[in-house]
Amino acid sequence: MSNIVIVGGGFAALQTIKMVRKIDQDIAITMITADSGVEYSKPNLSHVFSQAQAPEDLTQHSAQQLAEQYNVVIKTKALVSEIDTEQQCVYVDGQSIHYSKLVLATGATPFIPPAEGLKRNATITLNSLEEFEKHKAQIDDAQRVTVIGGGLIGVELAFDLQTAGKNVTIIEPASYLLNSLVPPFVSLELERELTKAGVTVETDSAVCRATYLPDGVRLQTTSSRLIRTDIVIAAAGLRPNTLLATQAGINVSRGIVVDETMRTSAENVYAIGDCAEIEGRVMAYLQPAILSANVLAKRLTTGEGEPLLREAKLSLPHIITKVKTPSYPIQLAGRDIQTAQSWETRFDPKGIIAKGFNEENQMVGFIVTGQHIKAAFPLLKELQISSPS
Amino acid sequence: MSNIVIVGGGFAALQTIKMVRKIDQDIAITMITADSGVEYSKPNLSHVFSQAQAPEDLTQHSAQQLAEQYNVVIKTKALVSEIDTEQQCVYVDGQSIHYSKLVLATGATPFIPPAEGLKRNATITLNSLEEFEKHKAQIDDAQRVTVIGGGLIGVELAFDLQTAGKNVTIIEPASYLLNSLVPPFVSLELERELTKAGVTVETDSAVCRATYLPDGVRLQTTSSRLIRTDIVIAAAGLRPNTLLATQAGINVSRGIVVDETMRTSAENVYAIGDCAEIEGRVMAYLQPAILSANVLAKRLTTGEGEPLLREAKLSLPHIITKVKTPSYPIQLAGRDIQTAQSWETRFDPKGIIAKGFNEENQMVGFIVTGQHIKAAFPLLKELQISSPS
Repeated sequence: MSNIVIVGGGFAALQTIKMVRKIDQDIAITMITADSGVEYSKPNLSHVFSQAQAPEDLTQHSAQQLAEQYNVVIKTKALVSEIDTEQQCVYVDGQSIHYSKLVLATGATPFIPPAEGLKRNATITLNSLEEFEKHKAQIDDAQRVTVIGGGLIGVELAFDLQTAGKNVTIIEPASYLLNSLVPPFVSLELERELTKAGVTVETDSAVCRATYLPDGVRLQTTSSRLIRTDIVIAAAGLRPNTLLATQAGINVSRGIVVDETMRTSAENVYAIGDCAEIEGRVMAYLQPAILSANVLAKRLTTGEGEPLLREAKLSLPHIITKVKTPSYPIQLAGRDIQTAQSWETRFDPKGIIAKGFNEENQMVGFIVTGQHIKAAFPLLKELQISSPS
Repeated sequence: MSNIVIVGGGFAALQTIKMVRKIDQDIAITMITADSGVEYSKPNLSHVFSQAQAPEDLTQHSAQQLAEQYNVVIKTKALVSEIDTEQQCVYVDGQSIHYSKLVLATGATPFIPPAEGLKRNATITLNSLEEFEKHKAQIDDAQRVTVIGGGLIGVELAFDLQTAGKNVTIIEPASYLLNSLVPPFVSLELERELTKAGVTVETDSAVCRATYLPDGVRLQTTSSRLIRTDIVIAAAGLRPNTLLATQAGINVSRGIVVDETMRTSAENVYAIGDCAEIEGRVMAYLQPAILSANVLAKRLTTGEGEPLLREAKLSLPHIITKVKTPSYPIQLAGRDIQTAQSWETRFDPKGIIAKGFNEENQMVGFIVTGQHIKAAFPLLKELQISSPS
């Protein structure tokens, strides 16, 4: 009997279920999640503190509601211990569940940079509703907050917590905030806005030692500063959860390697979301997961060789990434924006408009900031014409 | 009997003498300088350490040579103690010298920002050949050098000393290097180049305490760092030497206030060079001094109402300012560049080309860096058309 088994209960898993149900209302689906299986709006985690939101405010549906609405068996608080790709089954709490098709949507785990004395279990991460729930009281109580990592999440979180009235310090090992997303001339403006808001920004720096004292934590940084803080939050990037796949002999590089149809190296095993590596990249954003789920749903519901399948290949368009820092918003797009060799840029009191060009002078991306974010859509069209998907 | 008296012996004084002699070979000129009256190339001070130059290498003419060549009485190591604008005389070492026209070319003195424990006489400044001569051995011996001030001179000096093999730290109170000259997106690139060269750049910082130890100086900065250094060099800007003028009741604001004919508020008294304030600005660059000397020479040699005089008014064109940092040169121009509200900018591997526009979208200046400095001249033409002198 056909049974789709999905390991994981995050956005990519739920999106896959929704897309499958649009095509096939009857095929059996079992979702196994280590969490409570609640559906919530993850992007909203970017402003929960400034808007004084509770975990309930983010919750959209409970596991039970989802199970009923989508006709799915949902196993919550359940850990998959092993995948047997020969027998096509997964082991959950000693029980074996057969799959005809298996979807790995195991997500990613926040990375905590090691430092002498830094306690992993005392370091807060905020990559899920459950983590928010677990740490909310502690964060609410804190006055001094240190965020390790000045990437997208670190910057959004720092802005949000500072707006909520806390004293925030960001520590970033690179020379610039949003180092992997934007060129320095944009980082610099963002850093200025963060500093204006009261955030202490320490770039070219990392925590090298942590000492836990009765009244907080003392952090020694490589730039030889001492920071006294109440709590330490790590926002230093995500590591795809690939252990199950590796143990099952599935091909793993940075993430679980999939082709343009979301297939892994093992027959009838697929991967999607933050755990998957597509064209050499792990893309922990919602829109690639949505597009991947469209493709995957067709693969899961259709036999090989059927006409529907031939067109079911992932093609990633240019996606707008938004840095949700309300007083200095940034939007950018361009699949190959990191190949930009030159930037045509306008700086004015409204913000920045920058178009990136590669060596052949082809437009490969753009960045808009401040009040210029309304230029994002016309620029996206320009980008699509210049470098089509 | 006509006698032009010039107080000061720097570039502006000598330039005035040369221009006067082009018009009138006979009029009596007396130059009174506190220094040795040597003519030297001041811009070369920017690279004396990396090129291992000695004071002699910069020297062009001795006071004696100048006196003979230009038919001038030169009093060296002589201090003017007072100016009497009623009697039209200056007092030098108890002697009174009458003037028919007096030129104040008293220059400017490097500013040493005060800090607890910082010894003024142990802090090096390098604004003249004599200062270079005085401090050369000490600088040659030093390995660790701290430069206070990240403006034009501080940056050039830091680059030069680092190239000469020293470990240089720049401390700048503003958030960006060259703060008063270029927008942050240019400063940032320069900072990156300096850092790459090995210079430690500390912005948003000032020395708050200095402790002299047997093996060097310990500096405490406001950004809570401790710096150990062999020598401290101040490059924190210049203060026009206005004391004599003030005591004589001559109008002084930031500098000695002159009109477009270089006249001060006192009859037959003129001012030129780094001590003079023209249109509200003190311009410590060579080119304004050259243009001022042209105007002044006509004033000094011609009676009021003569035809030559009517056209002898200072009109400052756009001047290219060069930041002489060989591995990352910067050139900029624009009398009103600080009114730029928006910047049209190109960043590419060769460097930056940036055009500044005011609120009315009129081009008011430009900045070119790296290999793009060769675009300076065409841009200067564009600027002259857009905002004529």
